Amino acid sequence: MMIDKEISSILRENSWTLATAESCTGGYLAHRITNIVRSSDYFTRGYIVYSTKSKIELLGIEERILEEYGVYSSQIAKIMADKTRKNSSTTFSLSTTGIAPPGDETSDLEVGLSFIGFSSEHETNSKEIKIKSDSRVEFKKKLTETCLRYFKEKLDFYIA
Amino acid sequence: MMIDKEISSILRENSWTLATAESCTGGYLAHRITNIVRSSDYFTRGYIVYSTKSKIELLGIEERILEEYGVYSSQIAKIMADKTRKNSSTTFSLSTTGIAPPGDETSDLEVGLSFIGFSSEHETNSKEIKIKSDSRVEFKKKLTETCLRYFKEKLDFYIA
Repeated sequence: MMIDKEISSILRENSWTLATAESCTGGYLAHRITNIVRSSDYFTRGYIVYSTKSKIELLGIEERILEEYGVYSSQIAKIMADKTRKNSSTTFSLSTTGIAPPGDETSDLEVGLSFIGFSSEHETNSKEIKIKSDSRVEFKKKLTETCLRYFKEKLDFYIA
Repeated sequence: MMIDKEISSILRENSWTLATAESCTGGYLAHRITNIVRSSDYFTRGYIVYSTKSKIELLGIEERILEEYGVYSSQIAKIMADKTRKNSSTTFSLSTTGIAPPGDETSDLEVGLSFIGFSSEHETNSKEIKIKSDSRVEFKKKLTETCLRYFKEKLDFYIA
């Protein structure tokens, strides 16, 4: 079974809900989730926070926190996930932040460096990954796939 | 030139900005927009408002207005676009709402019926379209393409 459908079945069977906050995946993560029939039963909202201002205004992250850690960081991925879950009142949340090709002129960090965030009422965690890709689309697709696999691992733990 | 790139060039040349609010396209519209290199220069945020609660909480649409017009309506597409542009302080905004396959059990409206909203400081408009598709992905792709073409027409008008 496709991972999207496995996730869907688990969320549905447990009456769990999900919200997302995406930076570098720019909507592709929500797109994958909403491709599943009746995903509106558990997916309630998605934030695409492409600017610093939107991270502050939509998620409620403090500007000094963004400056302290930098938007491409494990800490910010976690804070994005935490704020999203709390703002949305969902069971779980996922977040993405990273450097899509061709890169960010304002950052010295390597292209492809990415962070996935996850939050539940019991934990808020993140994972760092380096995505190799030849294009933005490939980058987004690979990071989204990694994010869904990470989420599936978390769900497997929660249903065990 | 691909329509995405044409839109990108026009926005960049005029220092215009854009935000989106998606219901039925579920992130695919933002995905198309953010596939363009340096789209973060003009695309600042996207809302994916998959639940009624998220339409109220994220966009600030009043519940009685949603009930009065119904979420699948020209009026709501316009209000989504208007609220999004104002909340985001962008030059333009786009919105989508409609009935993705296999349909919505709570509505008598036909599958594929969709509305695109557009807002600028001079106008807030919408367009009704019937999308024929065999799957949710195809529906989302066709509606997004139509939305981008509608936006391009508007941009052509503004640069003329």
